[in-house]
Amino acid sequence: MKKFSVRVYVTLRASVLDTAGTAVESGLHQLGYEGVEGVRIGKYIELNLTAESEEKAQQDLHEMCDKLLSNPVIENYSFELTPGEA
Amino acid sequence: MKKFSVRVYVTLRASVLDTAGTAVESGLHQLGYEGVEGVRIGKYIELNLTAESEEKAQQDLHEMCDKLLSNPVIENYSFELTPGEA
Repeated sequence: MKKFSVRVYVTLRASVLDTAGTAVESGLHQLGYEGVEGVRIGKYIELNLTAESEEKAQQDLHEMCDKLLSNPVIENYSFELTPGEA
Repeated sequence: MKKFSVRVYVTLRASVLDTAGTAVESGLHQLGYEGVEGVRIGKYIELNLTAESEEKAQQDLHEMCDKLLSNPVIENYSFELTPGEA
């Protein structure tokens, strides 16, 4: 069995209105940071995964993202695997 | 003025209990992914920033993270700047 340190990024699809992102952008403008635009807020998930191989780890991660970590209707995901434990 | 594409990662400090992470880990175990552990859930923020220089952009980003994007009492942050717009 191999251990992997995994970072998952879940982002709203470009076509979906990001109300939290809009609110944060407005807040940053009010604080004087006028150069900010296009704020989008997503999730960043860290986990350790033990699997037979890197291929099996990747396959499991795609399933986990589709089933639980993201909502495929409105979100995209990507992930990075690093051998070893965080 | 220069444009930067920015990715901000906000994570709970290791000493802070991550209840959402614990719930997700339990959910993944129930779905049969027993090899998962140490799930931590943070925020992933994308934005475009216009600033005079990369140094000024970095300085502004540290301020934005301290003031609004993260809660420094319980969270850590890091960010990556890439020249150009996403």
